[in-house]
Parts: sequence; C-alpha cells; structure tokens
Amino acid sequence: MKSKRIPKATIGRLAVYVQVLESLRRDRVEVVSSEKLAQACSVNSSQIRKDLAYFGEFGVRGVGYYIQELITSIKRSLGIDRVWNCALVGVGNLGRALMKHRDIPRKGFVIKAAFDCDPDRIGLVIKGIEVMCLSRIKEVVPSLDVEVGFISTPPERAQRAANFLIEAGVRGIVTFAPARLEVPANIPVEYVDFSHHLYAVAFYINQEANKA
Amino acid sequence: MKSKRIPKATIGRLAVYVQVLESLRRDRVEVVSSEKLAQACSVNSSQIRKDLAYFGEFGVRGVGYYIQELITSIKRSLGIDRVWNCALVGVGNLGRALMKHRDIPRKGFVIKAAFDCDPDRIGLVIKGIEVMCLSRIKEVVPSLDVEVGFISTPPERAQRAANFLIEAGVRGIVTFAPARLEVPANIPVEYVDFSHHLYAVAFYINQEANKA
Repeated sequence: MKSKRIPKATIGRLAVYVQVLESLRRDRVEVVSSEKLAQACSVNSSQIRKDLAYFGEFGVRGVGYYIQELITSIKRSLGIDRVWNCALVGVGNLGRALMKHRDIPRKGFVIKAAFDCDPDRIGLVIKGIEVMCLSRIKEVVPSLDVEVGFISTPPERAQRAANFLIEAGVRGIVTFAPARLEVPANIPVEYVDFSHHLYAVAFYINQEANKA
Repeated sequence: MKSKRIPKATIGRLAVYVQVLESLRRDRVEVVSSEKLAQACSVNSSQIRKDLAYFGEFGVRGVGYYIQELITSIKRSLGIDRVWNCALVGVGNLGRALMKHRDIPRKGFVIKAAFDCDPDRIGLVIKGIEVMCLSRIKEVVPSLDVEVGFISTPPERAQRAANFLIEAGVRGIVTFAPARLEVPANIPVEYVDFSHHLYAVAFYINQEANKA
C-alpha cells in the first residue's frame, strides 16, 4: 500500500467514493464497474482507477470493484476504521449544529466534550454533553482520550481555541472558523470552508447564462 | 479574461485567496508578493501565479499583487460582486445554523426564504425570515428573485427538495445533505461535505504518528 504518497486531492475524492459505495452497499449491490462508480461520483473513470490504485489491486477486469472490500480497504488506509474522540470549542449556532449532526458520529468522529467561554452557555447539556468552561480543557482532553479538536468559534477567537486544544494534547484540528491558524508542524489542520461552493455555484450559473 | 476555462480546483483555491486577501486588506496591507500570499494560503507560489493568471496580469515584477485590484477582479470574474438571493429548504439544526451564519451574507448570499414540511417548524421566525410550507415555494421563489437554493434536509428528502427548488425556478443548488442529486444539466449543484476533512485529519495524524 502506498498510503504515504496519497495526494490531498485523492483524499478529497475518497470521501465521495466512500459515500457512494456505502449507498450502493445499502442497496445490496456487491460489485460496481469503474464506469458506473465514476458516473455516480461525477468524476471520470480513469481518475477513479488511478485514485483506487493507491489501495491495492481491487478492480477485476471485466467485473469491477468488490464494494465491501473496497470500503474496508479505503477506511483502513485512511485510519477511519476506528472511533476518533473529539472535543469542540465554541458552542454557538454552528457548534450546536455540529454536536447534533448525525453524520459526524456515523463517520467515526464522536464529540466527547464541548467548551465555551460564555457563562450563559457553560452548563448547557447538548446531546448528553455538558458544555464546560475552556479553562478545564487541559484536564478533560487527556482524561477522555480526545485526539481531534473541532473549532467553531468566531474567527477572532479561533487561534486562542487552537492554542488551548494543542496545549491540552489534541493531535489534529478541524476548524470551521474563517481564519487561518498558526500551529506546530506536527499538528494537521483542516479548514472547513464552504464559501468556495457558494462562489462555484455563482460562477457556473453565470456560465449557463452565457451559453443561453 | 479566460474565465470560461477556469478549472474547478482553481475556484476552490480562489475562496482561500479571497479570504486571505481580505484579511490583509483589513490590516491595511496594499501589496503582497506571491511568496507571502502563497505562504498565508498554504499553497506554493507557482500555483498562485498560475491561478491568478486567469484574472489578468496583476503581478508586478519585484513588487507583487495589488490587493484591492486583485480582490475586485476575482470577485467580478466569479460573479460574486453582487448579491445572490437564496432560498433554504430544511430548517433543522443545520438549516437554522445556516440562517444565522454571519459569513454567508458577507459573501453576498442572502437567504430570503426558508421552507420546511414539519408543521412544528412552519411559522417559526429565524433571523427575520418566516419558515413556510414547501408547497408555497413556486409562488415565493419568483416573487423574491431567488436564484440559488440551499438544501439542508435529511438525505432521503434532498432529491424532493431539489425538485421543488428547480420547479420553482432556482438556477443553481448548494446542498448540505449527504446524498447525490439528479438534476437537469443546466442546473449546477455544489455538494458541501466536510467528511473529507475528517478523513484527512485522521490520515495526517496517522502519518505524524508513523514519522515519530
């Protein structure tokens, strides 16, 4: 397995493949051709074959991919074949939506603790998790085996949240705040920003208008 | 301007460039070198130069990019130098967070109407917008000049929401539901899915562990 050299763009597409493969599995489909999979994922089939080649030789010529085997292998390679404990900082509207989001635990990411600095929020219980004062993070994160930090603060408080999370011992961060973070090189940060989707839809609507 | 040929990956990066450029502008910076901009955006400088070349010849050798000029040009090319009226379908936790999200109107996308099928939600007023029954969508969308539909329903209701939005006359869709949609070829759809960020952070944490 060549997992170390998997490019970032491939990882982005793998999320789509896993989603489509799991929906095929729910429909009791066992094998899928690269052409069909490509169509369902809105990419071309040579791209899929190239991306999936990172995970070994799954395609069977003239048959396709064995769905269950492929899902298992992709998940193992990415390290998402287990549960990751997460802590969230910033229990505003977005933070609450994340805590209630059904899809995050389904992907193996379980929010075990939530922190905020607002006295009106501390003590709230959301989905069974009590919101705690940020000052308790260094004690809580290690005791709950938290490895991933979610940041859903306003942008101006995101760096502070990151500092607290890293000092408390998280190994990686997913931030939903529109702000770039400065972190040590060994702490991966993922920036969730859907504004490029807003920009893209505007751009493609204009393209369609120019065609007409 | 070569806007028609701008690749999708470039559009994704432009959102980051705009964010970083706007934060530099807030700090009253007027000019930035491609090296500094690249560093702030976590991409390499040749990629930035290539991406920005789609928007004309902005770089001044030995000086850098004029920030204001570059922001204006990128926004004009993408069609985000104006307001886009949006309608949202699905007023659950995520839908409410989107309606309250400060960053969406800042990017020029204004939610003008919200729809749901749940009688307990119809009539709620969120950020000044009254939640309406989905059956009213065909009357409301044209009267409010809505062009973009947001879908934040559960996955099993996303296709129905898309059908309603398209029939009502929206020109493009941004969906937050984890489901692929079937739509006419002239309706662009953007899938917002942050699970690849979850996968990526897990993958890079494992990579760091393997280094150690």
